Amino acid sequence: MTKTKTTLVFATAFLWAGSALALDAIVEKKAFELPSYTTVGGKTIAKVRIGYETYGALNAAKDNAILIPHFFSGTSHVAGKYKESDPQPGYWDAIVGPGRPLDTDRFHIIGVDALVNLNAKDPNVITTGPASLNPATGKPYGLSFPLVSVRDWVNVQKALIESLGIKRLHAVMGGSGGAVQTVDWAAGHPDMVARMIPVIGPGLGVPAYGVAMLDMWGMPIRLDPKWNGGDYYGKEEPIEGLARGLGMVTWSAVDFTWAEKGFGLKWAKADANPMAAYGNQFAVEAALYGAGKGRAAVTDANHMLYTIKAYQAWSVENEVKAIKAKSLFIAAKTDLIFPPVLSHKAAEALKANGLEAQVIEIESDGLGHLAGVSRIGQAGEAIKAFLAK
Amino acid sequence: MTKTKTTLVFATAFLWAGSALALDAIVEKKAFELPSYTTVGGKTIAKVRIGYETYGALNAAKDNAILIPHFFSGTSHVAGKYKESDPQPGYWDAIVGPGRPLDTDRFHIIGVDALVNLNAKDPNVITTGPASLNPATGKPYGLSFPLVSVRDWVNVQKALIESLGIKRLHAVMGGSGGAVQTVDWAAGHPDMVARMIPVIGPGLGVPAYGVAMLDMWGMPIRLDPKWNGGDYYGKEEPIEGLARGLGMVTWSAVDFTWAEKGFGLKWAKADANPMAAYGNQFAVEAALYGAGKGRAAVTDANHMLYTIKAYQAWSVENEVKAIKAKSLFIAAKTDLIFPPVLSHKAAEALKANGLEAQVIEIESDGLGHLAGVSRIGQAGEAIKAFLAK
Repeated sequence: MTKTKTTLVFATAFLWAGSALALDAIVEKKAFELPSYTTVGGKTIAKVRIGYETYGALNAAKDNAILIPHFFSGTSHVAGKYKESDPQPGYWDAIVGPGRPLDTDRFHIIGVDALVNLNAKDPNVITTGPASLNPATGKPYGLSFPLVSVRDWVNVQKALIESLGIKRLHAVMGGSGGAVQTVDWAAGHPDMVARMIPVIGPGLGVPAYGVAMLDMWGMPIRLDPKWNGGDYYGKEEPIEGLARGLGMVTWSAVDFTWAEKGFGLKWAKADANPMAAYGNQFAVEAALYGAGKGRAAVTDANHMLYTIKAYQAWSVENEVKAIKAKSLFIAAKTDLIFPPVLSHKAAEALKANGLEAQVIEIESDGLGHLAGVSRIGQAGEAIKAFLAK
Repeated sequence: MTKTKTTLVFATAFLWAGSALALDAIVEKKAFELPSYTTVGGKTIAKVRIGYETYGALNAAKDNAILIPHFFSGTSHVAGKYKESDPQPGYWDAIVGPGRPLDTDRFHIIGVDALVNLNAKDPNVITTGPASLNPATGKPYGLSFPLVSVRDWVNVQKALIESLGIKRLHAVMGGSGGAVQTVDWAAGHPDMVARMIPVIGPGLGVPAYGVAMLDMWGMPIRLDPKWNGGDYYGKEEPIEGLARGLGMVTWSAVDFTWAEKGFGLKWAKADANPMAAYGNQFAVEAALYGAGKGRAAVTDANHMLYTIKAYQAWSVENEVKAIKAKSLFIAAKTDLIFPPVLSHKAAEALKANGLEAQVIEIESDGLGHLAGVSRIGQAGEAIKAFLAK
């Protein structure tokens, strides 16, 4: 359980606003299993498992569910705590709870893990991917695990939703990679999605600039000789490459003012001038490395590479006409990963198809992209109004 | 000489506007040597050499010189060609020549190499750094070469300028890392700099966000086992890490629209769907890697790490009051390395000290930071007017 703590602490490092708990509840992680799943690419995987957690009751009509897929390095843990002593609640706790925008007196909120979730070593994460045991061999798959697309993640989530007796979701809402899954849900299963709220997302497809950025996040893993072509299970793992890659993710997710406010040109150690020896660092370098290293402890390197691949290939540009959901796009003003223009372009395309679509921009407060996670409160009223439409 | 071609081709990959030659001349690379130089940090280096080249004649009063230090991965080669068959002229050729903003009928333009220049293997680059032979041992210094600061680079350039009999520069002008050196000249040797033109620079200091970005550019080198703590001379070199780092430099220097225009979601190979096998790539990934690999052939890994260190530590915040030069800051609108706000802040600080300072912003045309190199023509009139003041 201490590993879970580590994940959460680093997921919210530098970011936590210290707001009062919204969902003041202990939540339980549950597992969903499919005996077999065949990917969009035609490969069959046995025993596919994903985790989920719920807040608020499902009503008798089963029409009050809101599904929340997670961001790149996130998990199903949207709100609440797994146990009293957890240092932080789930990442969107600020907007979940009785009377809150994601009102647990009205809605049945479902946080869900994706396939190939990064945090494969976090005991609270349930996911299937390269680190899973291949039932046919009894050994981890490694790179023999089939590449899975965002549509595959969504299709497995759909099986979970159907197993709960839900035929149509009141809404799907997600931040960043969660926004990707949200839009993919609306494009892939249009009759099941009444509303969508993509937050800090890439609109209708990851742009080529993002394809390159994602490649760079994975590059340090592949450079680490311990990665060994993905075959490292039971051996020393590529922790150094992972830590460097995860440090880059954090850096990409903030904006120009973040580092200035927190670090400026401070040295990592007061007696180690960075110009006195090559190895002496600035505080900002050490902090990003430390954050990456902390997260690396619960991250599986191949899962990160598979997640990168799925996002790189994601686009619903050819399926836009299928979408039926009303949408509320939420963008963060100084987002350097998915700048607001991508949300505006997506909303325009949906409006051109006769759909209701709006965009709001929140202040980034120095946090760039991450404002969509830790400053979501700004969009609370807009979310509330949209869910009531 | 073919290696030089490679450097130039990659330095301008995707960028060249195809304008007519401005300085239609063959230029000659020259060497300047100091028998000994003592760094700001107190270390003495024997036989310090840097290269330079000039366009236009020095007048009798020796007061018409404009010095141009280079950007991160650049060289002294501002304009013209070394030989007719060079595929491209120097990087700011568009504004150099008779009647052009950097008018060779009026000015004596001096392009100069910095210490620890990245392109140590380019036969047209003359620089001293870790790849140089230590006269005391007859072997390359490696990491035993002292860390040098931007002020050290400037001080060696100052010795060159004085050797030419020049007491005061009409102007210093530079792009990106060249802007850093430009401002450092004005702060460190205020009586020698009448005007400065920092282009796409960080203002008065590299911000912490940039310190982290620079660290990431060097990180792949250190992860490459062939780097071997900087001790790779005479052995296999860390080309893979270098290529990855240099690919990141190119990616950082463009903006969101660049990749979209040039690549979109195209595959690197028409018969290799990136979702069919882990190793199959998108075109944008392959292009950035290819650009990095091309540049890696003339780049010394330790020189890159030393250059990174010097920029990370650079700030003249404590010396602003010393500056006497008039200034023209030129920023590129969608610059993601040094956004325009940094130039505006610097100009405000100089104006608060009673100095003349102006900022102009040029269109990035999808090129982000790199617009300061390949779209400099937009600032031509402003440069001309400023140099006439």
